[in-house]
Amino acid sequence: MDFKNKLQTYINMVNDELQKVFMAKPCPEEIVYKAMEYSIMAGGKRLRPVLTLAVSDMLDGDMDDALRFGVAVEHIHTYSLIHDDLPCMDNDDLRRGLPTCHKKFGEATALLAGDGLLTGAFEYISDYKRYKSATPETVAKAVLELSSAAGCGGMIGGQVVDLECERRSDVDEKTLNYLHKKKTGALIRVSAVLGALAATADKRYIDAVADFAEKLGLAFQIQDDILDCIGDESVLGKPIGSDAENQKTTYVTLLGLDAAREKVEQLTNDTMSSLDIFGEKAAFLKELAIYLMDRKN
Amino acid sequence: MDFKNKLQTYINMVNDELQKVFMAKPCPEEIVYKAMEYSIMAGGKRLRPVLTLAVSDMLDGDMDDALRFGVAVEHIHTYSLIHDDLPCMDNDDLRRGLPTCHKKFGEATALLAGDGLLTGAFEYISDYKRYKSATPETVAKAVLELSSAAGCGGMIGGQVVDLECERRSDVDEKTLNYLHKKKTGALIRVSAVLGALAATADKRYIDAVADFAEKLGLAFQIQDDILDCIGDESVLGKPIGSDAENQKTTYVTLLGLDAAREKVEQLTNDTMSSLDIFGEKAAFLKELAIYLMDRKN
Repeated sequence: MDFKNKLQTYINMVNDELQKVFMAKPCPEEIVYKAMEYSIMAGGKRLRPVLTLAVSDMLDGDMDDALRFGVAVEHIHTYSLIHDDLPCMDNDDLRRGLPTCHKKFGEATALLAGDGLLTGAFEYISDYKRYKSATPETVAKAVLELSSAAGCGGMIGGQVVDLECERRSDVDEKTLNYLHKKKTGALIRVSAVLGALAATADKRYIDAVADFAEKLGLAFQIQDDILDCIGDESVLGKPIGSDAENQKTTYVTLLGLDAAREKVEQLTNDTMSSLDIFGEKAAFLKELAIYLMDRKN
Repeated sequence: MDFKNKLQTYINMVNDELQKVFMAKPCPEEIVYKAMEYSIMAGGKRLRPVLTLAVSDMLDGDMDDALRFGVAVEHIHTYSLIHDDLPCMDNDDLRRGLPTCHKKFGEATALLAGDGLLTGAFEYISDYKRYKSATPETVAKAVLELSSAAGCGGMIGGQVVDLECERRSDVDEKTLNYLHKKKTGALIRVSAVLGALAATADKRYIDAVADFAEKLGLAFQIQDDILDCIGDESVLGKPIGSDAENQKTTYVTLLGLDAAREKVEQLTNDTMSSLDIFGEKAAFLKELAIYLMDRKN
């Protein structure tokens, strides 16, 4: 199967599973499910669960188990977007071309929808009887990996540093690397690690995919900064120039556009070497890295 | 050991463990740990972890494991208070006699501190190598129980219904029971269930303590409503009359003060029968139910 078909197959697996999870639940608290569903079904690249599936596939893992791990990560990713968009945070009105969750459902419901997705991720991933191959120990380990990546040592910590950087004008590249390694990198990294867990892979394989995903995550973030500067609004689904408007330090403001592009290219090359250990089996992941480098949204 | 000493012993175990968890963490994201620590160390009755410890103790469970379960519940309880106090929710300035988290640290940090405690609860409870007796299967089960109780089918669902009730003037007792069974009941119930899990108890024992805790939780909520009406502000650490001011339907507005008191008494009596199966070993839990009925804060 060629790259684009395989990518679409993975994305369809994720979307089908999400649709099952969020099937209409008529109950007194229906509104919060609707808000959760609205945000998680609003599209997006499904990069994180795709990574989990692709890594598991490469290592001959159980694809049903990998899907469960990956969809849990997508819950966490979506909650983080909802809370980041809130008025007390970035105060954004648009996300993926649609009104943000609080614009559509009000602030209180959006807050609870974020809480619901975060809690729901753990409800979903810890449902140990639902796994085909993963043992309860692997499930407990997956919960620990996911919560560590999402917590204060990972994504939330990165968000805190990001807020502080907004008030500063002296942010350097080292701080920016630290921030993004945590804010977006930790969740992308754990997506790959969970794929390896679904395949009960050896430590050296887990380390290799973690290394790959860390570099991929940073390249992804720098590409985001570039697109915010020179992207096409109709393709992005959100206004460009928001970083400049908010006087935010990004890789583009720090390095300039050309050097930022070179860095994305360099990091993308580096991801390839992390995958050498897997030989030809890594073909999809390598193409994924290039696809993300060339993306327009 | 008499009741009050035993209660204090359990509370000290919880506070000591929390202090270990929240020891100063000098790092770029220190502020969010400070906000989390501020809210979780602000006192409180520690009812939930005390329940976990007491149930485990009654069933000869592993007390270290029970402590880990109970402290995870306390993380979730504290996160729910921080998010409930936010301006888009109840917009409260005081909690336990102190400024609420967002009044002290700002809204963005309070939001992230709540997220951090919620995520941290799962990081802490899923750390399967830290348990003395609990198997990875018990740990996975504990995560599932805790996340279900905290999620949209439990606490968050109750919060959603609560928000909707605030807009309505036709809230009846059935709706109020439904709301509180979820909003406060689910977490109190799971606290007891986790204590039984730490003791690898049989299903009938788990059911019995769950039944006990459900009734206890409802009695606790009605007593809260009574104290909001006739309590002593200096003992409560918050202004009384806030329910009336917010035109909130409570057990007191619905049933009147006398009938509400009778209901607390009736429910407290009912908790005793749930414990009959445990004979004399249930002495502490029975005294706890009476202690909570007679409490002034």
